Amino acid sequence: MNLSGPAPSSPIAKVYVTELQDGNTVVTYFICSEKQIQTTAQNKPFLRLKLRDASGELAAIMFDVQPEVAESFARGDVVKVEGMYGIDDRFGPQLKIRRIRPVARNEYDEDALVPVSPVDQAELADRLHTLVESVAQPHLRALLERATDASREPGASFSVAPAAVRNHHAYLRGLLEHSLIVAEVAGGVAGNFPTVNRDLVLAGALLHDVGKTRSYSLDLLQPGLTDEGRLQGEIVVGHQIVTDLIAEDPHFPPELGGQLRHIILAHHGMKEKGSPVVPATREAVIVHYCDDMTAQIGAIDFAEHSAPRGERWVYSRMLETMVYLPPADGDGPDPR
Amino acid sequence: MNLSGPAPSSPIAKVYVTELQDGNTVVTYFICSEKQIQTTAQNKPFLRLKLRDASGELAAIMFDVQPEVAESFARGDVVKVEGMYGIDDRFGPQLKIRRIRPVARNEYDEDALVPVSPVDQAELADRLHTLVESVAQPHLRALLERATDASREPGASFSVAPAAVRNHHAYLRGLLEHSLIVAEVAGGVAGNFPTVNRDLVLAGALLHDVGKTRSYSLDLLQPGLTDEGRLQGEIVVGHQIVTDLIAEDPHFPPELGGQLRHIILAHHGMKEKGSPVVPATREAVIVHYCDDMTAQIGAIDFAEHSAPRGERWVYSRMLETMVYLPPADGDGPDPR
Amino acid sequence: MNLSGPAPSSPIAKVYVTELQDGNTVVTYFICSEKQIQTTAQNKPFLRLKLRDASGELAAIMFDVQPEVAESFARGDVVKVEGMYGIDDRFGPQLKIRRIRPVARNEYDEDALVPVSPVDQAELADRLHTLVESVAQPHLRALLERATDASREPGASFSVAPAAVRNHHAYLRGLLEHSLIVAEVAGGVAGNFPTVNRDLVLAGALLHDVGKTRSYSLDLLQPGLTDEGRLQGEIVVGHQIVTDLIAEDPHFPPELGGQLRHIILAHHGMKEKGSPVVPATREAVIVHYCDDMTAQIGAIDFAEHSAPRGERWVYSRMLETMVYLPPADGDGPDPR
Amino acid sequence: MNLSGPAPSSPIAKVYVTELQDGNTVVTYFICSEKQIQTTAQNKPFLRLKLRDASGELAAIMFDVQPEVAESFARGDVVKVEGMYGIDDRFGPQLKIRRIRPVARNEYDEDALVPVSPVDQAELADRLHTLVESVAQPHLRALLERATDASREPGASFSVAPAAVRNHHAYLRGLLEHSLIVAEVAGGVAGNFPTVNRDLVLAGALLHDVGKTRSYSLDLLQPGLTDEGRLQGEIVVGHQIVTDLIAEDPHFPPELGGQLRHIILAHHGMKEKGSPVVPATREAVIVHYCDDMTAQIGAIDFAEHSAPRGERWVYSRMLETMVYLPPADGDGPDPR
Amino acid sequence: MNLSGPAPSSPIAKVYVTELQDGNTVVTYFICSEKQIQTTAQNKPFLRLKLRDASGELAAIMFDVQPEVAESFARGDVVKVEGMYGIDDRFGPQLKIRRIRPVARNEYDEDALVPVSPVDQAELADRLHTLVESVAQPHLRALLERATDASREPGASFSVAPAAVRNHHAYLRGLLEHSLIVAEVAGGVAGNFPTVNRDLVLAGALLHDVGKTRSYSLDLLQPGLTDEGRLQGEIVVGHQIVTDLIAEDPHFPPELGGQLRHIILAHHGMKEKGSPVVPATREAVIVHYCDDMTAQIGAIDFAEHSAPRGERWVYSRMLETMVYLPPADGDGPDPR
Amino acid sequence: MNLSGPAPSSPIAKVYVTELQDGNTVVTYFICSEKQIQTTAQNKPFLRLKLRDASGELAAIMFDVQPEVAESFARGDVVKVEGMYGIDDRFGPQLKIRRIRPVARNEYDEDALVPVSPVDQAELADRLHTLVESVAQPHLRALLERATDASREPGASFSVAPAAVRNHHAYLRGLLEHSLIVAEVAGGVAGNFPTVNRDLVLAGALLHDVGKTRSYSLDLLQPGLTDEGRLQGEIVVGHQIVTDLIAEDPHFPPELGGQLRHIILAHHGMKEKGSPVVPATREAVIVHYCDDMTAQIGAIDFAEHSAPRGERWVYSRMLETMVYLPPADGDGPDPR
Repeated sequence: MNLSGPAPSSPIAKVYVTELQDGNTVVTYFICSEKQIQTTAQNKPFLRLKLRDASGELAAIMFDVQPEVAESFARGDVVKVEGMYGIDDRFGPQLKIRRIRPVARNEYDEDALVPVSPVDQAELADRLHTLVESVAQPHLRALLERATDASREPGASFSVAPAAVRNHHAYLRGLLEHSLIVAEVAGGVAGNFPTVNRDLVLAGALLHDVGKTRSYSLDLLQPGLTDEGRLQGEIVVGHQIVTDLIAEDPHFPPELGGQLRHIILAHHGMKEKGSPVVPATREAVIVHYCDDMTAQIGAIDFAEHSAPRGERWVYSRMLETMVYLPPADGDGPDPR
Repeated sequence: MNLSGPAPSSPIAKVYVTELQDGNTVVTYFICSEKQIQTTAQNKPFLRLKLRDASGELAAIMFDVQPEVAESFARGDVVKVEGMYGIDDRFGPQLKIRRIRPVARNEYDEDALVPVSPVDQAELADRLHTLVESVAQPHLRALLERATDASREPGASFSVAPAAVRNHHAYLRGLLEHSLIVAEVAGGVAGNFPTVNRDLVLAGALLHDVGKTRSYSLDLLQPGLTDEGRLQGEIVVGHQIVTDLIAEDPHFPPELGGQLRHIILAHHGMKEKGSPVVPATREAVIVHYCDDMTAQIGAIDFAEHSAPRGERWVYSRMLETMVYLPPADGDGPDPR
Repeated sequence: MNLSGPAPSSPIAKVYVTELQDGNTVVTYFICSEKQIQTTAQNKPFLRLKLRDASGELAAIMFDVQPEVAESFARGDVVKVEGMYGIDDRFGPQLKIRRIRPVARNEYDEDALVPVSPVDQAELADRLHTLVESVAQPHLRALLERATDASREPGASFSVAPAAVRNHHAYLRGLLEHSLIVAEVAGGVAGNFPTVNRDLVLAGALLHDVGKTRSYSLDLLQPGLTDEGRLQGEIVVGHQIVTDLIAEDPHFPPELGGQLRHIILAHHGMKEKGSPVVPATREAVIVHYCDDMTAQIGAIDFAEHSAPRGERWVYSRMLETMVYLPPADGDGPDPR
Repeated sequence: MNLSGPAPSSPIAKVYVTELQDGNTVVTYFICSEKQIQTTAQNKPFLRLKLRDASGELAAIMFDVQPEVAESFARGDVVKVEGMYGIDDRFGPQLKIRRIRPVARNEYDEDALVPVSPVDQAELADRLHTLVESVAQPHLRALLERATDASREPGASFSVAPAAVRNHHAYLRGLLEHSLIVAEVAGGVAGNFPTVNRDLVLAGALLHDVGKTRSYSLDLLQPGLTDEGRLQGEIVVGHQIVTDLIAEDPHFPPELGGQLRHIILAHHGMKEKGSPVVPATREAVIVHYCDDMTAQIGAIDFAEHSAPRGERWVYSRMLETMVYLPPADGDGPDPR
Repeated sequence: MNLSGPAPSSPIAKVYVTELQDGNTVVTYFICSEKQIQTTAQNKPFLRLKLRDASGELAAIMFDVQPEVAESFARGDVVKVEGMYGIDDRFGPQLKIRRIRPVARNEYDEDALVPVSPVDQAELADRLHTLVESVAQPHLRALLERATDASREPGASFSVAPAAVRNHHAYLRGLLEHSLIVAEVAGGVAGNFPTVNRDLVLAGALLHDVGKTRSYSLDLLQPGLTDEGRLQGEIVVGHQIVTDLIAEDPHFPPELGGQLRHIILAHHGMKEKGSPVVPATREAVIVHYCDDMTAQIGAIDFAEHSAPRGERWVYSRMLETMVYLPPADGDGPDPR
Repeated sequence: MNLSGPAPSSPIAKVYVTELQDGNTVVTYFICSEKQIQTTAQNKPFLRLKLRDASGELAAIMFDVQPEVAESFARGDVVKVEGMYGIDDRFGPQLKIRRIRPVARNEYDEDALVPVSPVDQAELADRLHTLVESVAQPHLRALLERATDASREPGASFSVAPAAVRNHHAYLRGLLEHSLIVAEVAGGVAGNFPTVNRDLVLAGALLHDVGKTRSYSLDLLQPGLTDEGRLQGEIVVGHQIVTDLIAEDPHFPPELGGQLRHIILAHHGMKEKGSPVVPATREAVIVHYCDDMTAQIGAIDFAEHSAPRGERWVYSRMLETMVYLPPADGDGPDPR
């Protein structure tokens, strides 16, 4: 971001992509998620942009742009725009920009720009606390307290990271939300089996995706994978984080540590899906299946939210099949 | 079974395969699970048998056998034998039979011959009752009461059938035991998701394998598949049973019925594993995963029980991998 | 369809999509297969439509449309349009509509709107009759007569249903045409093998896809799958139809019935392709292969018809390969 | 074969493996299909053999054997044996040999030693003649006459080669028998499709496996693959034979030749099964499916012949599934 | 190409696609790689073309075109054009043509039109000579000299053919360049193993793709597969070429010939990838792996060249994964 | 091992399994690789053992064994035996033991008991030194010197570990031998490509299997996998070792470290084979292919050594195919 002069001191009012109406005059801020400088037949530069906020994305165009303005911001920067929103009969919705400039950090609210978990932050913290406190084995509980301590890594990232680069759970605190539901389901399942170590299941479930804290970009304005995430893979990164945490406790029972690390490696369930070892313990079996099962239920929820109301069938790209959305009558709960 | 003369009136004392000691003289009854008539070099017939009871199987041989005795019973019959048990230094444990005859139904206790679920019958009935009573949707509850009524089909078979032809759950009431654990786990999972119809999950989980009542031989003395089980497959037979039960209730909501039948068809999760459709609803996803997950945990339990005590690693044929049996110290529950 | 006022009494002249020439003025009727209401930059609504008849599909646009006109019909309705057909130098062929209204059932000929099997209806009926009459086993012949009786289900639908939702055989009477060719080929093959039950092959071949009568929408104006087709799958639906038909004849030999139902279930040949059981009889082997073989030959015919004349190679999406169209000289029959 | 002295002049009487009875004294000849020289604890050599004829195979043992006798024949030689046949109560049927020697070609009937097609040789020749004569295209008919001319290659081998190394069709003239049934079925199928070149189908079907004439050992006393068969593969060898035959006719239409050669290469249907190209013409589709279909029917016939009479289910190793053998009542033809 | 009148005698100046600037007036020649004749709403024909040269491809449009001009050339012809190059603000770069005509062979330089190996022709010839001369086995060396003799086939085509239809190595002499690097790498690998026949490895590596000389169109103005390439496949065509070359030398050791032909057939390594046999010798193993390994390294080079400078990650379609381009500091060689 | 009394002071003479002759009296030592205590029909205990040394394995039996002798040693111990070697005519070669006792460490030569790399230890050290010295990048060379320092881990284990649990390379120093050949081949390949970092290839090749030092039991008397090897997998263990080594050098360039660790993880080439990430760099491509290629060549060498001399074809279990062993004439090098 290339800012000249002192930063303006007052926040800009936010208007969301999903609130725009045909013919509106717009003055607000967005992330610039795509930027192209093109030239007209008359050899004049113009800008084609994509602008994004927490609610969605919008195409924009700016003619008669001064070169210094065109160069004043980059893809990924937050910009203030003034313009006219309209729906072109050939090209669809578009913002015609008259003025644009990059903005300072104090002029905008980042929450307005990046998607956030629909679950309240305090609720997530409560659920996490409840789960960790329910662990009886002292070394496992201490490990979980250490791992989820938001004042240091990996806990600091764990409390904010997304659970995916796009679509489902690709929002702030998505990782925490996903880890909690897997742990809650897996902990419940463990209770049905006397031969299963519930503490180990909870620890494995809460930490199964902890590698995403270093594998995914934490800057949600510019989502993507890190070099480490691509070269080593999120499973191995997570295994390394857990191995290092265990090493901090010299009295951690080594066999218990071996089993916990195994759960991280095995949680994709099969080699074809990137797990270098397959589940060899009951606890690894449970974490793997609860991860897959909650992810598929989440995929159906996601498909439902993007379907027109009343539609009975919608395609889920994640499941690679049509899913059925039952009508909300006496047969079952209203899914929406 | 070919019995001549009046049936003896008093029961025979039972000695189990696992109780035999080298050098014991044995007088008791078994199922004849294999039978071959062979001829010595001196052209005399002799018998090679396998004898089985609820505790295990035993090789047996009988020389100097009269043809009418050799023909007096068939594979699958229950026989009384007298003989000497010993451990041959080349051929291992063997019963040398001196006398053999088929026995009448009132001479033996069938429970001594076929393996039975380790879970008490009354406990199974209680758990079933609890689950069915917890279903709120009236048509689903009525359907479950009808389906599990032990005084008529399919409930009569459902309460006794095995869940497999061999190994894991291949015992009396194995189907009921398996269906209950799947339903208990799946019902618990359903409680974590507000968008999931728990009643439908419970019904689907309890009935997912109901086709085994007609696909597996109920005569555990002669386990195997029925013609219907082989030609139509247990999934389609189960779907047909549930379709017929739904048709008995003219007011059963048709969309609810469609979803329940879908759960039966989809419970193997993918076409490669024999489901003609893949799960298209949250409820079908849950039943499928809980079936697979509990089966894998059961496979590890089974592998553990057949491993020498203290062994840390044992191969599971069902999982096609080595499984790890953690030591029973402070790290976790003693698995045995 | 939302019709106001009395329905006009006389049929409208039909002009087909494939007959239109650049610059034509058009007055005729189509199915509206897609409909979008959009707004110009001046905030005026306009319509973008797709119009379809038995010969093909056409893009259309209507400006200056009154809201009550825009709302007077829905996707799937038959509409009368007046307008000008032209080929835009950027956007290709397009109909500019001046007037549009929904039409009554007596104003149009449905045959002009939906694609129909190229084989004459009487010829199809004759071939069906010949095949059914050739069956010697009395129960099988009676079952086929019952199943193909066009005055009741499933015969009523069987005589009109398409064999696919799109492309190959996705037309009126496509299911009957496809079932006949499979049965004719399979019956011929059966004649080469003394161990094969030809009557059973014919019955299985004629009914192998009978589940499509309830799995596919019969309204070819709005093609697609039914809820039952999606949730239970066409194979299981077909199996259920045949099971119910067999149950109507209390003397139907049960082993013969089991074999016929097996053919329906097994006709996709492998589990990966949706058959819950694999062929276990010679007759099931023959029906499966003759279905696949005739479908592939049909796919090559289809690819050829959509290829420019004289082209030697054309890609077949169904076969996922290039197919070769030999030249029509002395080497072989002219394929066109 | 190592023969000393003049060859005896008179043939030896043949007794078949399947005719032997416990206690029989045996004087006849077999192929020695396995041979091991072992040593007793007393350091004396003895022979363990497998002996084979057209009807089956037999274990044999010879004690007190002179070294020069033990060395006088090799695996694969035909030997005359004298001995006693008995059924040992531990080791099953066995021939105890007293005398053994290799025999000359004029002492035995090769037909007694190798399995032969159950179809009469004259019938095979007739059916071949009928098919070849039915081909109208002159170059294709000439090619087939040339290829099947039993006085030269490949026809000489084509008329005697087996169609497999073991099991199904692994007998003299098995290749011809198999090629005929594929061609008869495929020719019949071709008749159902006006766009199919029946002459090309017949030629492709008759020659699809012609590569086996050079890929399989023609010495049925020592079945196996040739070096060429292993290094180049029977499909490519067959393609080369057909390419060479076409090259003999300078007027053979090149496009027709390309299509015929394509059928040979593509007849396994997919790359995973060894076809370097997949079927790209209707004729290649037909030959591929008719080959697979007739092979599977043959596998069921083979499984049935090796099953105990009355058995309803038998495992087919080739199909990797249980196959169903229907009872021979009014429901269908008696399969045996 | 349809030329009327005497061919012009002087060459046309070449301007490359990559040299064009917005607003340029252009007079030069290209291959016409796509051609469509369309009609305006005013019923006037106009042309939409794609024009290509060795540097890239360009969209073009010509209005007010006379029918005889529009018909004077076909797709694949070389044309001279005069027009104006500009960048449309909606449709991107485009050439507006004022005049167009097909040109004679002596008016243009084919090298300016087709992409060429970046490696110098003399260097390729030197490296080929060095490799062939290093072969000690006389029959193999003679075979290689014969096969690579550029004055006759297959050497004439081998010295110019591309190694692919598109992308990587899809340029003049690409086949030779690829064959050389595979042979150099494989020859080096062979030197590490005393049990490997290096001469055989070199011969197999140089000839592994020789089938492309007849399977790919040599006219790079119209790239694609030949009928033979599609119907028989490049592997079998290559095998046939090598078989014919071996047959020219009556003293060629047959076992050596069998091994060389095996390398050609097996070089894709597995049946799924089109090899009808899998590698059965050390030499075939080496050629297969060196082919795959050099192709993957080439794919990363190709991905790097098409990535923006400084980019660390770029998607490779051939490898179906993101590849990492390390920074050019002390850690490694600068990859560009 | 359970030794009572003072250890004998003098070494026992070694006689190898492969040197035994029928009738030999034997006094020597072996590892006891299997041990069973059984009981005769007369209720007397006897021992069944497997005895092993560097040359092979042998069955043994001991009757009339005192319980305290039977209990004096365990599976995996080294024992001194006295007995008689003979070849039973039914049960094959067997040692009848008269006396047995466990032996002390100073009584035997471990080299006589475990298989050792056929390559001389000094030669291995030289080749390793040469490779490491050839690395120019200072951090990589220092890392290799540290990693292969035989006075500390992982070098201490790296210099002695086997490369497999059984068969090919399952001998002392097998890991070093395998790592060297991969590095030599890969280093040579790297030299052909200017864009490849040869130093990185050498480091990755030498260390690709370093995880085996902790994943395989180093006690070759009791080969197998460690708990860590099974639960975490040798690839992840190796990655962890290299990560820790890199961390010892605070100036190690982080991007170089990331690439080296990637090579370790990716060296199996695909997820199905246990690599959690696929190769994303040229260097990872080379190490992966050179590992696979040398392993396959080694498998053919191994198959050849276990084949009877003169055999042309032998089955390789590792390659799952028959491999061809060419004759040793002028066509190529004598492979033996």
